[in-house]
Amino acid sequence: MKGEILCIGTELLLGDIVNTNAQFLSRELASLGVNIYNQTVVGDNADRLMDALNIAFSRSNIVFTSGGLGPTKDDLTKETIAKFFDRKLVYDEIAYKNIEKIMKKKNMEVSESNKKQAYIPEGAIPLYNDNGTAPGVIVSSEDKTIVMLPGPPKELIPMFKSKVVPYIKNKVKNVLVSKEIKIYGIGESLAADKICNLLSGDNPTVAPYAKEDGVLLRITASGKDEGHCKNLISPVESEIKNIFKEYVYGEDDDTLEKVVVERLIDLKKTIATAESCTGGLVAATLVNYPGVSEVFMQGVVSYSNEAKMQRLGVNKETLDKFGAVSKEVAMEMAEGIAKTAGTNVGVSSTGIAGPGGGSEDKPVGLVYIGFYIDGDISYKELNLSGNRENIRHKAVLEILNELRLKLRKC
Amino acid sequence: MKGEILCIGTELLLGDIVNTNAQFLSRELASLGVNIYNQTVVGDNADRLMDALNIAFSRSNIVFTSGGLGPTKDDLTKETIAKFFDRKLVYDEIAYKNIEKIMKKKNMEVSESNKKQAYIPEGAIPLYNDNGTAPGVIVSSEDKTIVMLPGPPKELIPMFKSKVVPYIKNKVKNVLVSKEIKIYGIGESLAADKICNLLSGDNPTVAPYAKEDGVLLRITASGKDEGHCKNLISPVESEIKNIFKEYVYGEDDDTLEKVVVERLIDLKKTIATAESCTGGLVAATLVNYPGVSEVFMQGVVSYSNEAKMQRLGVNKETLDKFGAVSKEVAMEMAEGIAKTAGTNVGVSSTGIAGPGGGSEDKPVGLVYIGFYIDGDISYKELNLSGNRENIRHKAVLEILNELRLKLRKC
Repeated sequence: MKGEILCIGTELLLGDIVNTNAQFLSRELASLGVNIYNQTVVGDNADRLMDALNIAFSRSNIVFTSGGLGPTKDDLTKETIAKFFDRKLVYDEIAYKNIEKIMKKKNMEVSESNKKQAYIPEGAIPLYNDNGTAPGVIVSSEDKTIVMLPGPPKELIPMFKSKVVPYIKNKVKNVLVSKEIKIYGIGESLAADKICNLLSGDNPTVAPYAKEDGVLLRITASGKDEGHCKNLISPVESEIKNIFKEYVYGEDDDTLEKVVVERLIDLKKTIATAESCTGGLVAATLVNYPGVSEVFMQGVVSYSNEAKMQRLGVNKETLDKFGAVSKEVAMEMAEGIAKTAGTNVGVSSTGIAGPGGGSEDKPVGLVYIGFYIDGDISYKELNLSGNRENIRHKAVLEILNELRLKLRKC
Repeated sequence: MKGEILCIGTELLLGDIVNTNAQFLSRELASLGVNIYNQTVVGDNADRLMDALNIAFSRSNIVFTSGGLGPTKDDLTKETIAKFFDRKLVYDEIAYKNIEKIMKKKNMEVSESNKKQAYIPEGAIPLYNDNGTAPGVIVSSEDKTIVMLPGPPKELIPMFKSKVVPYIKNKVKNVLVSKEIKIYGIGESLAADKICNLLSGDNPTVAPYAKEDGVLLRITASGKDEGHCKNLISPVESEIKNIFKEYVYGEDDDTLEKVVVERLIDLKKTIATAESCTGGLVAATLVNYPGVSEVFMQGVVSYSNEAKMQRLGVNKETLDKFGAVSKEVAMEMAEGIAKTAGTNVGVSSTGIAGPGGGSEDKPVGLVYIGFYIDGDISYKELNLSGNRENIRHKAVLEILNELRLKLRKC
């Protein structure tokens, strides 16, 4: 089945809203085995919508539309689709009752413009809307199908899941299953080079994606059922894990903070953070993980030198001799936070996030990160690029990844 | 000028990422006076990209592409666009030097696949990339122009703003000038109601947008030059500011943290933070502002009760009697951080971000924020909705906004 997505709405063309419907539909349809080769957005304009439908059906046999089903004059999707299939719009009693029900919930009268929403193309399968007044429909001719959905995600998503998914499953023969492997510490192009033989595979396919938190490698198999797909994925997954070894930090929904916190929980080790240039972002990232309170005790954002001495016991001599941005201070910070907080693990950051504050010796992007793990103290020097936000963000990822690697050996 | 947007990337068709580039480009181009009637997404596939280019130019004279400029084999945009214009790809020395520079910063070698990124279509205007290895280009024939941009937003956005905007401004006759007014503490629809007479204006237009950090009201005027536009904007701007009064926190690029930090600098007041549920995010948000070190001294993420007592001097009795999530603890935290850090201002958060940990008395979303300003202690109770991330994020905004309002009176 060759499908495409056609979103209708002038607010999308003006950039007032981001097109989350296209993402939702694409992801859901991919997992149902419907190949989506195009997404299109047009405004609330009948001529341009008709053109878009003609283009879409020149290359696809099923089109999923969203939007343009509202009660106002500029909502033209249903009328245009009926015209495309040369069908009349006919009154649907159940759709009308649903509109009455929804309006009653809102303590509002059914207006004349709402009534127009109860009409659907003749012969179409109605998709009644539990969360709004506009019904969706599935309209088919011999070789063309349109699945017409309302624009608001809170209406579109439940309608798709409850009514469109069963319809599609009934039509599609093959299943698609994906598995994601996440790696950190190696760039997208180098990662691709290392698995170039896998990238040209057909079933399963392997594709690398550069993400904020590393590189994601997606293995996707097509087969007659889930078990069949998993059997195709399994050897490729093993091969990838074997190639990237400790660069692999997780799968699917894993994040660096999740992996680190879960490892700390397993090891029953507590942690505290001492941050300068990252300004609290390491703590805030760990706290993303809901179970973190079991292991994360406290953090100090020691932005001033005074705070480094007062809160963490960093020596004045160390600050004077090496400067706040130095491996010596990073290590004293990590040790200091662990000892004052009474935790097994302490991590620290000190660096120059820019845009000002850099020098020839210590340029913008120079960051030292420190680690204390049960008495072992170490550091890593980072030379990061990008703006202030990038530098801070990368420093956080580096701290989490280094900590992940160190905790593997515990 | 009739334009459209063509985003290239299989990850968009699979729904792996949401198409924020289409939104960004649409909004920016609308404000530059370029009419966008279509947005299209195709995968990394040369044939389908060529088809999409042909369709796009059958109805538009300028096409903005994003994506497909990476170093790997499946990045085909540049090659396909060169073919579309029947141009050779030629080596660009400056683009190559830029790739070397970017890779050196990352301590990485220039790979063979990176080298291919230094080639651009013959006769094209190069758009050198300050944030990545792929240069953009503008390629034109008699009646067709393609502006080709890299996919990652952190590369696309600065390239568009610094290099494409001047190019477009030069092509478009009428000037469009926008002014943004930012408000916090009042919802989008209520804000719209208060200025409904302005919303129907023609020149300037006024449009409200719901943003993460409040509501943005954009005033846009069209005129023969910048001065003309500014004269049209000025009275509307005054009217809006008069309607929303202290809800207005800034203009254009202002953020809540920028406004707060600049006010602290003006007042010569120092600040420290004590965070529980926000987990370091208040500190990290203040640290977004590059000049923050002048006023921000330190922060404590007192996640455990022990940390609240040890670092902030919160009384054990207060914790026992009222619980960690209480106005009493919030106020002791704010006072404690200011006194131990020796700052004028202390702010605090303690709450239940969820998903677990809620009770009937203290449900998920209950957050107390505390303030200490030169001896004055106060708190605010928040009842926030959404997931863990939403709740923490809204709590940060509330702290910054409350602090802004309190500092107005200093």
